[in-house]
Amino acid sequence: MRDFTFFNPTRIEFGKDKEANIGQYLKEFGVDSALILYGSERVKKNGLFDRVATSLKEQGITYAELGGVVSNPLISRVRDAVKVTKENNLQAVVAVGGGSVMDSAKAVAAGAKYDGDVWDFFVGKAVVEKALPVFSIMTLAATGSEMNMAGVVTNDETRQKYPIVSPLLFPKVSVINPELMASVPRDYLAYSAVDIFSHCLDLYFTASYLPEFSAELIEAILKTVMRTTDALLKNSDDYDARGEFAWAATMALNGNTFVGVEGNTYDTHMIEHAMSALYNVPHGAGLAVVLPAWLKDIKNQMPERFERFADKVFDVAGGDAGIDKLTEWFSAIGAPVTFAQAGLPEDAVDPIAENAFGNAKLWQMDTMYPQERIANILRLAV
Amino acid sequence: MRDFTFFNPTRIEFGKDKEANIGQYLKEFGVDSALILYGSERVKKNGLFDRVATSLKEQGITYAELGGVVSNPLISRVRDAVKVTKENNLQAVVAVGGGSVMDSAKAVAAGAKYDGDVWDFFVGKAVVEKALPVFSIMTLAATGSEMNMAGVVTNDETRQKYPIVSPLLFPKVSVINPELMASVPRDYLAYSAVDIFSHCLDLYFTASYLPEFSAELIEAILKTVMRTTDALLKNSDDYDARGEFAWAATMALNGNTFVGVEGNTYDTHMIEHAMSALYNVPHGAGLAVVLPAWLKDIKNQMPERFERFADKVFDVAGGDAGIDKLTEWFSAIGAPVTFAQAGLPEDAVDPIAENAFGNAKLWQMDTMYPQERIANILRLAV
Repeated sequence: MRDFTFFNPTRIEFGKDKEANIGQYLKEFGVDSALILYGSERVKKNGLFDRVATSLKEQGITYAELGGVVSNPLISRVRDAVKVTKENNLQAVVAVGGGSVMDSAKAVAAGAKYDGDVWDFFVGKAVVEKALPVFSIMTLAATGSEMNMAGVVTNDETRQKYPIVSPLLFPKVSVINPELMASVPRDYLAYSAVDIFSHCLDLYFTASYLPEFSAELIEAILKTVMRTTDALLKNSDDYDARGEFAWAATMALNGNTFVGVEGNTYDTHMIEHAMSALYNVPHGAGLAVVLPAWLKDIKNQMPERFERFADKVFDVAGGDAGIDKLTEWFSAIGAPVTFAQAGLPEDAVDPIAENAFGNAKLWQMDTMYPQERIANILRLAV
Repeated sequence: MRDFTFFNPTRIEFGKDKEANIGQYLKEFGVDSALILYGSERVKKNGLFDRVATSLKEQGITYAELGGVVSNPLISRVRDAVKVTKENNLQAVVAVGGGSVMDSAKAVAAGAKYDGDVWDFFVGKAVVEKALPVFSIMTLAATGSEMNMAGVVTNDETRQKYPIVSPLLFPKVSVINPELMASVPRDYLAYSAVDIFSHCLDLYFTASYLPEFSAELIEAILKTVMRTTDALLKNSDDYDARGEFAWAATMALNGNTFVGVEGNTYDTHMIEHAMSALYNVPHGAGLAVVLPAWLKDIKNQMPERFERFADKVFDVAGGDAGIDKLTEWFSAIGAPVTFAQAGLPEDAVDPIAENAFGNAKLWQMDTMYPQERIANILRLAV
């Protein structure tokens, strides 16, 4: 076990209709006004926005609203939201949506208490010293953003997809109501499953020291994701499966799997963020392309762990068989595993590798991942 | 998945020498004075107390000290500590010890901000509305108290072993340094292993609804405890084993295993608390006697779960075989599994059953556990 600090103060409120209490949750933190941030107009049409707004009003909490946060969320929209928040002197940010909205809400929370440009936090020009409290109501489970201190946003001018990280950005309360996710389209369910896999496998296959308990926890998360994804593709109204899937997503990135671990890096994310930044591929779809290719590239570095993965997660013998099974399962649930399936042209390899190498430099992984190695990994998926 | 609230704001600082930072941790919370609460004088002889005191002094934090907290800690000592804390107007409680000291520290933290008698919180005469911040430095891993909101204390006059529970009692920061546990005697290591088992199995075998993920998490904890206990009995200086054991203890009772669960109760604790209260049996030793007997009593209630337990944890077929393996393992590590081995007379059955029935009433389990049923369970261990 390596030294670690574990800290996660986010409160999770899980269950049917819990979003109707959001006003009370804000009130507990002394909040009198808030920005409601959301993505597509779907949350208006399906009544969710109204339930949230009504709950705030019942507690005497005033609000402004801003929609239009897109998948692979943009810093331009975050800047809009910071402006609205500052102009109205709002005291909190309520994210109603998936990972994009939650990640954007964190950036807004930091930006609203900062005089400079919010992008400064993403490129290391400023450190978050103050932030508004963030609350979230999840409509898509995948990123784990509801219970961690990070957010990822794309700069639409520079085509950089970068993270903002601060303990001040843990949401105060996150609502997980599986019923709100019942209408997630099948492709986005698949992308979400892949995203959770990548959060787990980036850790599992890069850690130079991985405690047995962490390995078992990750394996339990992966098996839960597979079991519940298969169940949801058969019956999208399976409440328990939806709930277990959501909790697996949360557990994959709320710190528990990282306990006592040494030397882990975010390899597939480093590469995929470039795909999303340049070609606006859905994050999970890009990861489905990158993950099997990356596994093929690194499989000889730690053969025992690949054998263990194959055995524990897919009940097959041998590291290659494990990668094959993973790739088959991604295909079976409808996730793309090649450039063509993801709608990417072959000649995208070099631009993606170049952009990803920028991430590698920022994340201090450039020695391990020269641009040519990244290109070689990508070619395994062409 | 049933509705749940998950909230656990305790920060864990895990690693070698982390106790030397305790002054900084207190300072982060604006604390200028503290009570250092401890158990035996061992922490004075081995230098731990001095390291803690020095760290406080370096941060300009004044302190008073009180030792003498015993295993199965007593409300009389808690009252002493409340008195010292009030008299010196201290702002925090630092527990240096095992579960007994941590549990007592929580009671002191609540009692110090209350005008009445601290026992009121245990018998439902008062609710904790204010509490001093609690910090802890663990010297024995077992109870999970370092990362939860409960403490258990015995009233030496009424022979009641009861809990105090409040979200205000989560420790702010808990230090887990495996090196501080290297000198735990073999019998207490065994009792601790049994305590962790009981925290897990009370849940595993009573939940009317147990999500698959929770079951897998519990199984991972139990396997970790068995693997690391066996390793530590061979080599008490095995740092990684000590650390993994400690984290398994924390995970067993920090809320993660309870996520989405319905209908769980604390059956073995309800019975064992009576043993400790009346005969001052070490908690883990009492649990080792109660647990196999209780499993025999309930095994026909949910045969599938017993079969699963046997398969997943002990790799044997059939519920009875699982109970046998568990009992064998308890014996192998040196935990008592009969009244005689625990030094309890046969005629202790009825007094223990009577006292336990008091717990059953307080915990609203008396319909399920009439006194005669408790006595019958105990007779299975005579």
